[in-house]
Parts: sequence; structure tokens; C-alpha cells
Amino acid sequence: MLIPAIVSVIYGEDDLIPLTISAGITAISGVLLIITCRVQHELRLREGFALVTLTWISFAFLGALPFYISGYIPSYTDAFFETMSGFTTTGASILSNVEQLPHGLLFWRSFTHWLGGMGIILLSLAILPLLGVGGMQLYKVEVPGPEHDKLRPKIKDTAKILWEVYLLISIIEIILLYFAGMNLFDAICHTFGTMATGGFSTKNASIGHYNNAWIDYIIIVFMIIAGINFSLHYKALRGKVSIYGRDPETRFFLFLISAGALVIIGNLYFSYNYTLFEGIQKGLFQTVSILTTTGYGTDDYEKWSSSSQIILFLFMFLGGCAGSTGGAMKIMRSLVLLKFAINEIKRLIHPNAVLPIRIGQRSIPRDIVGNIAGFFLIYIGIFILGVICMSMLGLDVLSSLGAVAASIGNIGPGLGSVGPTDNYAHIPDVGKWILSFLMLVGRLEIYPVIIFLTPTFWKE
Amino acid sequence: MLIPAIVSVIYGEDDLIPLTISAGITAISGVLLIITCRVQHELRLREGFALVTLTWISFAFLGALPFYISGYIPSYTDAFFETMSGFTTTGASILSNVEQLPHGLLFWRSFTHWLGGMGIILLSLAILPLLGVGGMQLYKVEVPGPEHDKLRPKIKDTAKILWEVYLLISIIEIILLYFAGMNLFDAICHTFGTMATGGFSTKNASIGHYNNAWIDYIIIVFMIIAGINFSLHYKALRGKVSIYGRDPETRFFLFLISAGALVIIGNLYFSYNYTLFEGIQKGLFQTVSILTTTGYGTDDYEKWSSSSQIILFLFMFLGGCAGSTGGAMKIMRSLVLLKFAINEIKRLIHPNAVLPIRIGQRSIPRDIVGNIAGFFLIYIGIFILGVICMSMLGLDVLSSLGAVAASIGNIGPGLGSVGPTDNYAHIPDVGKWILSFLMLVGRLEIYPVIIFLTPTFWKE
Repeated sequence: MLIPAIVSVIYGEDDLIPLTISAGITAISGVLLIITCRVQHELRLREGFALVTLTWISFAFLGALPFYISGYIPSYTDAFFETMSGFTTTGASILSNVEQLPHGLLFWRSFTHWLGGMGIILLSLAILPLLGVGGMQLYKVEVPGPEHDKLRPKIKDTAKILWEVYLLISIIEIILLYFAGMNLFDAICHTFGTMATGGFSTKNASIGHYNNAWIDYIIIVFMIIAGINFSLHYKALRGKVSIYGRDPETRFFLFLISAGALVIIGNLYFSYNYTLFEGIQKGLFQTVSILTTTGYGTDDYEKWSSSSQIILFLFMFLGGCAGSTGGAMKIMRSLVLLKFAINEIKRLIHPNAVLPIRIGQRSIPRDIVGNIAGFFLIYIGIFILGVICMSMLGLDVLSSLGAVAASIGNIGPGLGSVGPTDNYAHIPDVGKWILSFLMLVGRLEIYPVIIFLTPTFWKE
Repeated sequence: MLIPAIVSVIYGEDDLIPLTISAGITAISGVLLIITCRVQHELRLREGFALVTLTWISFAFLGALPFYISGYIPSYTDAFFETMSGFTTTGASILSNVEQLPHGLLFWRSFTHWLGGMGIILLSLAILPLLGVGGMQLYKVEVPGPEHDKLRPKIKDTAKILWEVYLLISIIEIILLYFAGMNLFDAICHTFGTMATGGFSTKNASIGHYNNAWIDYIIIVFMIIAGINFSLHYKALRGKVSIYGRDPETRFFLFLISAGALVIIGNLYFSYNYTLFEGIQKGLFQTVSILTTTGYGTDDYEKWSSSSQIILFLFMFLGGCAGSTGGAMKIMRSLVLLKFAINEIKRLIHPNAVLPIRIGQRSIPRDIVGNIAGFFLIYIGIFILGVICMSMLGLDVLSSLGAVAASIGNIGPGLGSVGPTDNYAHIPDVGKWILSFLMLVGRLEIYPVIIFLTPTFWKE
């Protein structure tokens, strides 16, 4: 919060004091935590669940303070929603006029994305694989960094390596956006939103504000980068660029982008008055933005044909690659489940054949396939419960589906009354808390939060 | 077709000749088949897939003739859609004015339901368990009838027993509906629609036409009966009535009806001007009608609150019990997947515990759980492909979701432009063929059709 406070000093606006007070409260909370909760023993694996969940919740609680104290978001519920949306890299907003915020708060809002994205890379590549969550144990061997027996130093080394990659790519994007025509402030904020696949913009019309093909294509490329496993970027930066082409998840991710964009571009070109160039620019941007769960917009996809909307809605469930900052179910899980389904058909034709599920060179063990199927079922189950809750609060069918898919998948814009040109301000307070919870559940890959909330976990 | 021809003689209407001609064409086709395709060898298990699929397709092709020849449905596509909807016990119609059809054709239309229902009971309890399709092997031991080594005599015995049960319950419903105030013709036709969980009515306003609480409740009870495994009815008729209470699938089925109806009745009572009595009657009717995949209507649920619509939409995927005439995914599969998902969470809390999935007294083997998860994935996959196709044909998002869910789940009415007061006439011809195909795929539990269409199946 002291970094946006510096921004506030530079622009000389009225958010300096709220940011400083918030920083003070946060610092005091931190000191109190260190004094009261200091433990000497080595972190146990299952304590990770509680730690991860509490980190995000407390970040959102404290991170909401600048918005609330400054009075720019007068309701604490709204401020919490906005901040949880930030730290979970969702990008769903309750603000109808973003441009009225002072620069310090705008910076803080986008900065929550970038910090959240950092946390997610660490979570998905260093913590979840060790906890064996929903098939993430597949990534155990891929985690970069020296081997340690103890959990804490290992996580620390991995974090350092991955965050250097994250920082480096972010700097490159800031420079490119600056030269494409954004001012430095907007370049930094939009880079935060891109790299974290977040989606908060400093403009009401999101990226559409700039109406600049260079900016669109730069952000398309960096959204794709942010949607790919960061351990691949690490290896690529060390010279093994061909690693992308050899990674089955990345290939399937790029295939999905191409296939989805092709249909949508076709729709835009043949059914609307878009030139081919415009169609490619708008269609590709929106496909990448939704599939990577970023949620930036350059056009109102609710005006597009229903098939384009259906494809974007489906993409809300797929998400980025595991180990990226992208949310939702992750490409790897979809790929494993797709191969599993195909195998089930093959098995009936050849009842006695042994049919392992292969992803690239690797054969996926049966129990991991089971974990992934379980993850999918729980994801869908929570989605359904969420949709029932939102419809009970009065949202229509399409908006309920859209709001919940966009929250649990950490996308941001949904369908209906929470579409790309709308915001979440009109949702009742209870609904905002439910959606905030769904953002958290989706972002942390469900299990940590569920287990944290399970009474038997605490009995032992 | 000769039975509806007799009806036509009784009423002296203009559908006698079309029905007789169609019967003739069907008879000639049958004779030609017997002459050209007679095989002496014992039926092999995998030939069952082809036999089942071809039976339904040829029934629909020939069954469409009376509608088409009579000119009451001038488009063959429409006639085929209507007949496939009949034999698959879907109940989706392209007719905007049913009441203009002569009695012979109305009888034939409803009769296709009843025949289709017969076929489904046989398929789900005598054929699919032996083929090991999507977890149906669980029902292998439950199939009534003497044990045979050979497939054909076993199926024959099972069929005889189950059809007697089906016929007996149907006769009881006809008598009750007659005494509740329907004329005999309507009582018979609506019994056909109920027992098969079909949904074709002889009235434009469906069951709402009668506005009679007795009729509503009789049909509610018989829809529930039709949604329960018929091998349980067989055992119950032999004196073991307590078997329903001991069957976990039936209990979960009744629980879902109660839970769903409770929310919907609450909605109707508190948010609309329904009396409690009306709310119970309408809410319970619609809940049972959708969950059993019948599709009869007494009210326009698209005017109800969005939470009621969401619950009904979800119920479109669950369906009746396995071994009933109900469609969709079947209660047993939902129950197994629910327990599997809960186990996945438990497993993370107790990593070393052995957690079998128990349904009642029975522990479900891991590979059957896998088959059921596979079935679910393929069901959802086909649903998604169907929705994409329908949206490409120009249906809006909600109507695409509704039309495909209602077709693959064999319900009939969907959402949006194919809601309970609409019909399928406005869907483009290609869409009608796709939806007919989806009805078939859903009705035959997916695998037989997919395998029938798989080239490698035919190479061997």
C-alpha cells in the first residue's frame, strides 16, 4: 500500500491519507500476527491449506481498506468484493465509473491483481503439487529449483525463480504498451491486469478505450503468455524455447484459442458488418481474454451471435494452463478428462485392451485421473449451488449462470446483467459475499477452502 | 399401426387409409428384412449395439409414415422428428395445434410413447447391463427372470415379466384417469404418455386443459411410478412392497422430488398469487414432470422465478431411476458421482484411508465408478456440442441450452423459444435432425449409438 501511496504523492491526489492509514492498520495487524502466532515447528503439509485460504481472505479484508476509508467505495461489502476480485485476479467490478478514482487507488486496484497473480503461480507450482490437490501432483516433478527435503526453503527457492520470470515479462509488457501509445501509468496498470489474467482496467471502456490495434495485439500476446505454465517460461528463458511446442497442455491451449477464435471471427465477418481485419482483432482478443480468464474487453460480446456467446461461456470453464495465472478448471484437466472420455468409448469396443491415458510422453496414473474427475464434479457442483443461490436472490437465469461462471472461473464479465458492459453493483449484498467466496474457492483450486471449512479437519 | 387404424374406424375419420398404407409398408419392410437378413447364429453381445440403434431408427422412419401420408404433418422432417420424439419418449412436438389431428393419429402418436417405453425398460434392464454400458452392469444381478446361459431366451423371459408389470400399471392408470373425469380415449393416450415418461398430450394445453386436481395428482403418482426401476415394481407386486424404502436410488429420487418441489412451491406461494393448495399442485406436478423427464405441463414455468427455472433445468439432466422409462443421466449415476465427489474431499483429509463408494449395502467397484464418470463426461460433451450446433443455427443462448437439454434428456419442453407453451416447429430442418439424433443418443444411453457410428467397430 505504500507503493500506491507514492503514486498518490506523484499525482497529488486525495487518496494519500487513506492509503497511508490502511498501510498502518495492515502493518499493525502483521506485527500482532507475528507476536501472537509465531510457531517454531516446521510447516506441515496440511497446514498449507489453512495458510493459503487465510492469506487470501486477510489480504482481501485489509486490501479493501483504502477504497473504504477514502470513501470512493462507500460500502465495505463493495470494497471487499472489489479487492477479493483483485487478489483472485478475477476483475469483476462494482464500479460503474472507474475513471473517477484517483491514481493511487487505481494503481492499488490493479496492483492487487499483480500480487494475486504472484501468489497463484507460487500456489499452483509450489504448494498444490505437494498437497496432491485435484491432479496437481502431476506438476511435482516440473517445479523448478533445487531439491529440498523441507517444505519452507523449497517453496522459497521456487518462488524466487518464478517471480523473477513474472517480473521480467511484466517489464517487457510495460515497455511495449508504453511505446504502443499508452501513458506509463496505464501501461503499468494494464500490465498488472494482463500478467495476472485479472482484467481491471483504468478505463470504463476497458481496452476498447484505446481503439489501437497495436495495444490489442500486445495484450493478446501477453494474455496468452500469462495463460501458459510459468515453469515453461522459466525453461524457455534458459534457452529451451522449443519446450512450448513439446508441451501437450500448451498445444491444446493454443488449439482451443485457434478453434474458438476461428468460429467467432467467422461469425463476426459473415453476420456483422466487421471487416476481416476488425473481426480478427476483436474476435481473437475476446477469445483469448475469456479463455485465459483475463476479462478485458474491446467489444460487447453480448451483441454477438449466440454461438459466439456459447463458445465464450464454455471457455469460462476451461481457463488457462495449470501453473499459469489463469483461473477456472485449467487446460490440463480438460485434456485429461477428454482423453478419459474417449478411452471409455474405446474400452467398450475393445473390452480387454489396456488403455492408459497418455499426455505427451507421460502416462497418467488411474488415481490421478480419478482426482481430476473428482475436481471436475466438485467444480460443477459448486457452480450449480452458486447458480441456485444467485437465482434465489432474483437474478435471471442467464445472469445467474454468467455471474457464477465468471466468479468461480475468475474471469470477471459474465452474461446477462453482468455482461461485459455491465458491472456487479446491482447484485444484492448477500450475493456479493457469495460471489466473493466463489472467486476465492475457484482461485485456490477449491480443495484448500473446502478442507479449511471442514470441521473434521480441525478436530485432529 | 393397425391398432390406431381400429381407433380410426371407431371415430370414422380420414386417417384410416394413411394408417393402413403405413402398416402395409411397414409389414413389407419387415418381411423383406426377415428374408434378406436372417441369421442362424446366436446373437453376440456387441451385435446388440447395432440392433438397438437400428431398431429405434427404423421405428422412427416407418412410424412417421402415417403423419406424413395423411398430410397432417406435411414435412417428412417434421413427421420424423415427431415420431422419434414419440419412440424415445421425449414428447417434444412440432405441432402447434394438436387438437386438429384425427383420433387415429393422436392415438398412434401417444402409442409410440408407450411402445418406446416398453423398449426402454427392456433395454435398460435386460440388454445394457449385459453390455456393460456406463455403469449399467450394476443392474446385472437385479434383472428378474430365470437364469439362462444364452442371451436371446434370457432377454425374452425378462421382457415378458417386465411388460406384464408395465401393462398392469398402465391399465390401473387408465381406469383411475377415466373415473377422475377423462374420456376413455384421453385416459388411454395420457396413460401412454405417463407410463413412458413421454409427454405427448391430446390437448394443446397439455394436462392443464383439464384443470382437475384429481387428474393432476393421479398423473403425479404415475409419473413417479414410471420414474422408478421396474424390477422393483415387479418385486413389489410379488409382495415385497418394502423394497422401495430399501432401494437407495428410489430414496434419492424421492428426496430430489421433495427438495425441488419444496423450493418451487415456496417460490410460487411467496412470490406469486398462488394459494398454498395451488402452489403444491402446480409445483409438485412440474417438478415430477421434469425430473421423470415426462414433460407434461399444467402451468408455464417460464413465468416462474428464475430459481424455479434453474432447478427444473438442472433436473433435466438428472432424470429418472435406471430401469425406469425416465430419460437423462439417471438418478443412480448422480448418486454415485455425488458420493465419489464427497470421497475425493475426504481423501485429502485422510490421505491413507480406504474409502469405498457405498450405495446401500453395496460397494461400487472402482472401474464402475470410472464408467459412470465417463458416461457423465460424454453426456456433458454431447450436450455442449449440441448447444454449439443449435446456437449456430440461430437459436438464442437460453433456447439452445433448453432445446438440447430437453432433447438429450428426453424431456420435451425446454427453455426460451422451446419452453412449455412453445413447440419445436420454428427450428430449422437441420436442427430438427440434430435434435432427433440427440433424442436417440440420450434415450439409448449414448454408448450404443456412438459405438454403432464408430468405424473401428465395423472393421472387425
